[in-house]
Amino acid sequence: MRDVLDAVANGDLSPAEAEVRLAGYATTGAGRFDAARERRRGIPEAVLAEGKTPDEVASMATAALETTGRAVITRADDAHVAAVTDDLPAEATVDRDDRARTLVVRTPAFDPPDLDATVAVVTAGTSDAAAAGEAGVLVRAIGATVDRVDDVGVAHLGRIVDHLGTIRAADVTIVAAGREGALPTVVAGLVDTPVIGLPVSTGYGFGGDGEAALGGMLQSCTALSVVNVDAGFTAGAQAGLIARAVDGARDD
Amino acid sequence: MRDVLDAVANGDLSPAEAEVRLAGYATTGAGRFDAARERRRGIPEAVLAEGKTPDEVASMATAALETTGRAVITRADDAHVAAVTDDLPAEATVDRDDRARTLVVRTPAFDPPDLDATVAVVTAGTSDAAAAGEAGVLVRAIGATVDRVDDVGVAHLGRIVDHLGTIRAADVTIVAAGREGALPTVVAGLVDTPVIGLPVSTGYGFGGDGEAALGGMLQSCTALSVVNVDAGFTAGAQAGLIARAVDGARDD
Amino acid sequence: MRDVLDAVANGDLSPAEAEVRLAGYATTGAGRFDAARERRRGIPEAVLAEGKTPDEVASMATAALETTGRAVITRADDAHVAAVTDDLPAEATVDRDDRARTLVVRTPAFDPPDLDATVAVVTAGTSDAAAAGEAGVLVRAIGATVDRVDDVGVAHLGRIVDHLGTIRAADVTIVAAGREGALPTVVAGLVDTPVIGLPVSTGYGFGGDGEAALGGMLQSCTALSVVNVDAGFTAGAQAGLIARAVDGARDD
Amino acid sequence: MRDVLDAVANGDLSPAEAEVRLAGYATTGAGRFDAARERRRGIPEAVLAEGKTPDEVASMATAALETTGRAVITRADDAHVAAVTDDLPAEATVDRDDRARTLVVRTPAFDPPDLDATVAVVTAGTSDAAAAGEAGVLVRAIGATVDRVDDVGVAHLGRIVDHLGTIRAADVTIVAAGREGALPTVVAGLVDTPVIGLPVSTGYGFGGDGEAALGGMLQSCTALSVVNVDAGFTAGAQAGLIARAVDGARDD
Amino acid sequence: MRDVLDAVANGDLSPAEAEVRLAGYATTGAGRFDAARERRRGIPEAVLAEGKTPDEVASMATAALETTGRAVITRADDAHVAAVTDDLPAEATVDRDDRARTLVVRTPAFDPPDLDATVAVVTAGTSDAAAAGEAGVLVRAIGATVDRVDDVGVAHLGRIVDHLGTIRAADVTIVAAGREGALPTVVAGLVDTPVIGLPVSTGYGFGGDGEAALGGMLQSCTALSVVNVDAGFTAGAQAGLIARAVDGARDD
Amino acid sequence: MRDVLDAVANGDLSPAEAEVRLAGYATTGAGRFDAARERRRGIPEAVLAEGKTPDEVASMATAALETTGRAVITRADDAHVAAVTDDLPAEATVDRDDRARTLVVRTPAFDPPDLDATVAVVTAGTSDAAAAGEAGVLVRAIGATVDRVDDVGVAHLGRIVDHLGTIRAADVTIVAAGREGALPTVVAGLVDTPVIGLPVSTGYGFGGDGEAALGGMLQSCTALSVVNVDAGFTAGAQAGLIARAVDGARDD
Amino acid sequence: MRDVLDAVANGDLSPAEAEVRLAGYATTGAGRFDAARERRRGIPEAVLAEGKTPDEVASMATAALETTGRAVITRADDAHVAAVTDDLPAEATVDRDDRARTLVVRTPAFDPPDLDATVAVVTAGTSDAAAAGEAGVLVRAIGATVDRVDDVGVAHLGRIVDHLGTIRAADVTIVAAGREGALPTVVAGLVDTPVIGLPVSTGYGFGGDGEAALGGMLQSCTALSVVNVDAGFTAGAQAGLIARAVDGARDD
Amino acid sequence: MRDVLDAVANGDLSPAEAEVRLAGYATTGAGRFDAARERRRGIPEAVLAEGKTPDEVASMATAALETTGRAVITRADDAHVAAVTDDLPAEATVDRDDRARTLVVRTPAFDPPDLDATVAVVTAGTSDAAAAGEAGVLVRAIGATVDRVDDVGVAHLGRIVDHLGTIRAADVTIVAAGREGALPTVVAGLVDTPVIGLPVSTGYGFGGDGEAALGGMLQSCTALSVVNVDAGFTAGAQAGLIARAVDGARDD
Repeated sequence: MRDVLDAVANGDLSPAEAEVRLAGYATTGAGRFDAARERRRGIPEAVLAEGKTPDEVASMATAALETTGRAVITRADDAHVAAVTDDLPAEATVDRDDRARTLVVRTPAFDPPDLDATVAVVTAGTSDAAAAGEAGVLVRAIGATVDRVDDVGVAHLGRIVDHLGTIRAADVTIVAAGREGALPTVVAGLVDTPVIGLPVSTGYGFGGDGEAALGGMLQSCTALSVVNVDAGFTAGAQAGLIARAVDGARDD
Repeated sequence: MRDVLDAVANGDLSPAEAEVRLAGYATTGAGRFDAARERRRGIPEAVLAEGKTPDEVASMATAALETTGRAVITRADDAHVAAVTDDLPAEATVDRDDRARTLVVRTPAFDPPDLDATVAVVTAGTSDAAAAGEAGVLVRAIGATVDRVDDVGVAHLGRIVDHLGTIRAADVTIVAAGREGALPTVVAGLVDTPVIGLPVSTGYGFGGDGEAALGGMLQSCTALSVVNVDAGFTAGAQAGLIARAVDGARDD
Repeated sequence: MRDVLDAVANGDLSPAEAEVRLAGYATTGAGRFDAARERRRGIPEAVLAEGKTPDEVASMATAALETTGRAVITRADDAHVAAVTDDLPAEATVDRDDRARTLVVRTPAFDPPDLDATVAVVTAGTSDAAAAGEAGVLVRAIGATVDRVDDVGVAHLGRIVDHLGTIRAADVTIVAAGREGALPTVVAGLVDTPVIGLPVSTGYGFGGDGEAALGGMLQSCTALSVVNVDAGFTAGAQAGLIARAVDGARDD
Repeated sequence: MRDVLDAVANGDLSPAEAEVRLAGYATTGAGRFDAARERRRGIPEAVLAEGKTPDEVASMATAALETTGRAVITRADDAHVAAVTDDLPAEATVDRDDRARTLVVRTPAFDPPDLDATVAVVTAGTSDAAAAGEAGVLVRAIGATVDRVDDVGVAHLGRIVDHLGTIRAADVTIVAAGREGALPTVVAGLVDTPVIGLPVSTGYGFGGDGEAALGGMLQSCTALSVVNVDAGFTAGAQAGLIARAVDGARDD
Repeated sequence: MRDVLDAVANGDLSPAEAEVRLAGYATTGAGRFDAARERRRGIPEAVLAEGKTPDEVASMATAALETTGRAVITRADDAHVAAVTDDLPAEATVDRDDRARTLVVRTPAFDPPDLDATVAVVTAGTSDAAAAGEAGVLVRAIGATVDRVDDVGVAHLGRIVDHLGTIRAADVTIVAAGREGALPTVVAGLVDTPVIGLPVSTGYGFGGDGEAALGGMLQSCTALSVVNVDAGFTAGAQAGLIARAVDGARDD
Repeated sequence: MRDVLDAVANGDLSPAEAEVRLAGYATTGAGRFDAARERRRGIPEAVLAEGKTPDEVASMATAALETTGRAVITRADDAHVAAVTDDLPAEATVDRDDRARTLVVRTPAFDPPDLDATVAVVTAGTSDAAAAGEAGVLVRAIGATVDRVDDVGVAHLGRIVDHLGTIRAADVTIVAAGREGALPTVVAGLVDTPVIGLPVSTGYGFGGDGEAALGGMLQSCTALSVVNVDAGFTAGAQAGLIARAVDGARDD
Repeated sequence: MRDVLDAVANGDLSPAEAEVRLAGYATTGAGRFDAARERRRGIPEAVLAEGKTPDEVASMATAALETTGRAVITRADDAHVAAVTDDLPAEATVDRDDRARTLVVRTPAFDPPDLDATVAVVTAGTSDAAAAGEAGVLVRAIGATVDRVDDVGVAHLGRIVDHLGTIRAADVTIVAAGREGALPTVVAGLVDTPVIGLPVSTGYGFGGDGEAALGGMLQSCTALSVVNVDAGFTAGAQAGLIARAVDGARDD
Repeated sequence: MRDVLDAVANGDLSPAEAEVRLAGYATTGAGRFDAARERRRGIPEAVLAEGKTPDEVASMATAALETTGRAVITRADDAHVAAVTDDLPAEATVDRDDRARTLVVRTPAFDPPDLDATVAVVTAGTSDAAAAGEAGVLVRAIGATVDRVDDVGVAHLGRIVDHLGTIRAADVTIVAAGREGALPTVVAGLVDTPVIGLPVSTGYGFGGDGEAALGGMLQSCTALSVVNVDAGFTAGAQAGLIARAVDGARDD
């Protein structure tokens, strides 16, 4: 502990970084940032912008950059993006995905993870793009390769059959689907790798908020695991953890 | 009206039949039997045995036989069957389906309808047999031909593809499915005839009482109409009405 | 396959049309358009505008026009309509229904289907007009004749009795109703043709989002099939498929 | 208060009756019996047997008889009936309705109320008889006349039209219906007296526990008030209070 | 019928009025107005403005005025009010209640009903005023007297006890309450007249949309009938029908 | 640690007690018993018998007796009781409450806690006795005094007013109520001590499984905290913790 | 009573204060203000601004100030704050918390309560701050000390362990948590004082409106009591009542 | 194909095996057995006994043994077990787990898969054993090693901390938990491998059927994927697929 404190005294270490080394998290004006999450869990601690003010998000992004070299922000609107990018050191790189509503910022010193593993991210229709995009950003942040296969819903089975090769080649597959959510069930019946169902809040009327899709995936007659409605972050993180396990085994 | 009353006076007409001719229904100890339904709607008035005592069901079956020459009873347990068959005239024919829990009784004089139309009845799995069977009994009672295609759930797409010819040859298709209820959606994407989804109360956990299947069919990204969970009677009646319309048009 | 590719090389066929002939769908910037749906299912592939940007809808409408000669767009707001009509070839005809929120565009070369069959579209009240209108647009796009019967809710039975003749004359009937959704049950008790219940999200309080109407139609003591709340498209497509079956039988 | 205590001392008044006069309720081993309810509210305090042991019900029935001269017991099974009737004074009269599951016991001294008012109790089908019967028992206990109209569900409108005269002649009408629960709406559109909807837990699948019927009645496009599913007691009590108000006004 | 047609030909009768006399309803551009409802049911046919355009509401209000001499409009916002009042004949009187969101318009020739009966309208808190106000407007339109008792929720029992006299003096009582909705239960335990529970959509969190209040009133351990959440119209109409019954009996 | 192991070796300490001292819990064949809970939380670790076999419950009860000198078992049926009492050392005392379905066993060496604090346990009706009884057993096990006030539901306000003195004298009050669950709200409006609402699964129809009572208590317009439906254990434990805090403060 | 009226006549007492002394509440244009609540319950009567107009809130705040010397307003937006502060006497002190959306106003004469008791207010994450803040304002208004412990959610157990000392030192603890709401369960397993769970409406998808957090807290395997979603007021009031009980016992 | 048919003709191949080779499934009297599932998906096709008759299960088990050398049966009661074991060839080995309600039968020729991968199966309490056991049976059938960690619920954090080493050493972890279902969230915060949440239908009251646990896991603030309530089969199959992926990578 003494060397950490010495480093702070010498200006070699910011107080935030020092707190992370000693306590495992950084205390910002907008909350505690769990900087050790990436080390502990292998997945970056993302900042969920929705429901936070631009200032709060910028404050947590700064803490993330300072302590881990990267900030991953989800469900960010334009005001959140502006607040974060206003504060950035000049040399930081910024990666914004409007559709997925994500923002990834990195310092030059950040050494991105690189896994020898691939995640297929499949959508049933155009409306599933936002959730699938958020999942893809997380997978890439964890270091795996993403293969997207889009618009292959079950109303026309030919589309999914045409793209089966890509899906079968991946180590794990995320399938995003709204409405009745049948696509993950059909995909899981055709491959021998783990499939994660990502229900999407499209549709209308009874079950139209994504609950019909969620219910269908939970009841699937093939073996699937599932995340919450629109939880692209969770699907991506879980797929990334599986990719990490596969990558680790390839290294064995 | 006078001739009806004369016929009763002469013993040529039972009071029940006379009431039907005059009022459109027969009043039994256990309720009013809508004897004119078949004439008015083209579908037999079935007696739902569940929730009625054996005596009540027997009383309504007798009224049905007397006024229409046929009794169609659904959700009948063994006690219901015993009560009905104890009371029957000797010459009546009895058709019991244990799996579908139906009982159809006919007098020799009954002239069954005969439609030039076919209804495919498809199941996803073994557990869908009861609801599908009830639907089939109704379809046959209305006079159409039933083609059963069983155990072709989406977990193995090869099964449904193997049997597509039978389904495409039918005028209308009922698809019974529990769990996530994806099969009607897949079938409706492959045929150009009307498909009726029949959700079944299999499954367990969240949505396991058939609500996941119902929700999925209502949200289907292909065009389906749907009946309530386990409503084999309704699915069969609706398919029968479509078969009647087709048969009528063939006669045009 | 070679002749398709030759035609593309010669400029006789657009790449989109060529893709449709070879793969069954056209890949646009905004998703895959299932151009073969009409051939496969007999119902046009409609573009659901809600939840898509005007540009996405315009892009899919262009693909639809190019490959099938017609674009059917549902739940379109004014921005969607403007984007689509801005892009149109001069000779295209445009049919916008503000109440039903639909837009149908056709090239002069498009040969509309024409069925010898009629669909009655019935509403319980003024608020059911949007869903009923969407259903009607689909029925007409499939080629059947629509007979509208409006404002005949069960609070005043005289209204429905006055218009029974029109309904009985149709081959199939769609009944749109919100609140308690009792009208389809009453209509189905009075006719011998198939009735499709279309619940509408009017009402307020418990069940006011259309669930009371949906539940009532699923529980109907007469035989009905049902579509999801506000699913005018689905009701129209299903009625259209029945009309096609009847028309086909008339041709037999 | 002194005279009450004197009467207890003299044996002219039971302690239970004395407690009622002083506190408004009688304390039994099985709970407090609100003996003053009839005086305060005009409706008898009924004992709900369901969920109580036979001994508890008998103990409360005894308190009711002793303090008010009458015991009204609902949802009583045979064991409850046996326990109550075992304990009775010889001169008490017993009125058991198996279908309605009610038991009414009276001492000879009991002077039953007698109102100049009529309540129509209408059922849609055979399965509504238990709830309607319980309602009728309460109405009669309050002193009004009951006119039953049975099996007039909306699947055949002719039945309800045939019996409209009886319903219109009543001062207030209770309509019991399960499944989609449309009958109260139809009746309320045809009469100018108050209608109380009594949803019944028949049906199956989605909304089959009476919630579809309840939702439909709450959303009714005619003016209805409603009670809970199977709440025959409440419907009868409310109709009885209206009958009392009318009777009181007739006396003015 | 001939005299009606003669009167139209002579200009003595508007076509709308003639249609009402012949068919029982007036057909407007915005739907059918059930002009005979007041005669048939004793309660005015109100126009529910919510979900209709100002023009539609104005068109139905004009039909109402022309055929019945009065228009009762509920859930009207300022645009609805402007559209209706713009169209009015100069001599019409206008009664707008901003809180209750109602608008009542009358021609000088209109002869308002006048009942010898009183309805108490009770609220638990300030937020219940809109629903209670709508109920009061209906009661007055039917001709009964309204006695308001406000802000007497159960958190302070002293308030309801202080105002019990007014409530007991009324022929029927409406109790509007949100949150846990306990006030109707407490009131019904204290009076011997019919009580109608009107749940209000105040509160937040679990059950905060009025479902906790609705559920509590349906489960009430005293005898209540209930209307849907925020259904002031229905509560007022039902109370008005009871008031009419009492008034009629007073005339006997 | 060495002295613990020495004691085991000498037979002065059972292995179970030794495990508790070292690890904080005892591992039995039927699960781990959290023997340190009482020390850590101040409330005994109760064994929930429901869903466990009699043998499992007996095994956990033995571990509890051995390590803490007392076993508190909830939701025990007769088979559970028999299994536990068969295994007991002769000198143990047994306290069974059939209504509350609890069983408390103690060794002579057990020194029961004794708090200078009182908890009022109030019920609305007879059916609330089981849940209230379970709460009372927990309160007494924690060492506080229980004052029961029964059958004081809001249908008759006089009952609760008559017993207010007892409730106001307690340090904290548990109010058990089913149906609409209004009693805790009324009580909390009348006292200045903490009130805990305990909803009970009585009632039937909509909300009849205790959800109406739960919803009403969560929405209460007075300040209450709440436990789950029928969670007598939790209500008693929470009231006991408050009693402990008060007792501790009295000792300060 | 006479001296109160004399004081009003002399101008020594405002009519509002006089009404409070005589009736226990003040009648304002916007409702009755329960001025005696603080005396009766020990917790201030707060004005819930949400759903009221600024004028109504100002009117009730004035009544509160006049009769109790303090106004506590919750869920106040800027317009509410402006309306209240515009009306204030110059010497009043104003305490606005933007995050918690509360406003507390006091006259100089107000003598704030001061309890010898501490309440820990714990949050799982940044989004729980509003509800926790509202709870804290109530606790302080009742006179107890608040110790805040923020951002100690279970995703990183180290955070809660680091701050356990503060929580264990408090007399009672409120734990605010959204998403899965696990933190109150974990905290309650670690302390021997009462814990109140405060579920927060963060999260999305299934259970995202706070119902997952509420359900988890109600099902907690440790002993907790719970308040409604976002009910900071209720949590603070209940914790304050417990703090009062402890303070009272310390005085014994 | 010819060689398959020749083998059948020669008696070298059963018709069932031949059908599997040609069509991918075996048609039994009780349904189609998807014999190729193991080859296609890597997980055995299990027979869900619940809802099937003993004869149906025995028939499908025979088909499974004949075509794959193994039958895995879940949710089997004693009658199912008896029917299956009565029919077995003498040399088959039988593995029954009463708690998990599974039955695994193997022929001597069956060569069980053997993966170099480990799955930790963790339970929160005794009641989670059945679901966890079913999951373990599937994992072992797929060939991975199972490490069980039992009774480590969050009410006592020390238990989970004591067993973290075992969990961290596994390649993937299943966490079964009922009640509030917090354990998977806590475990996932402590490990860097994939965690699958398995909600269990313990608990009572609101959310007591496993929905609180399911909701909590879907809302988890750490990254989890989830299966349906009590879906031990699905959790085991998904964990097995991940173990297969890891094993495959180890072989790379």
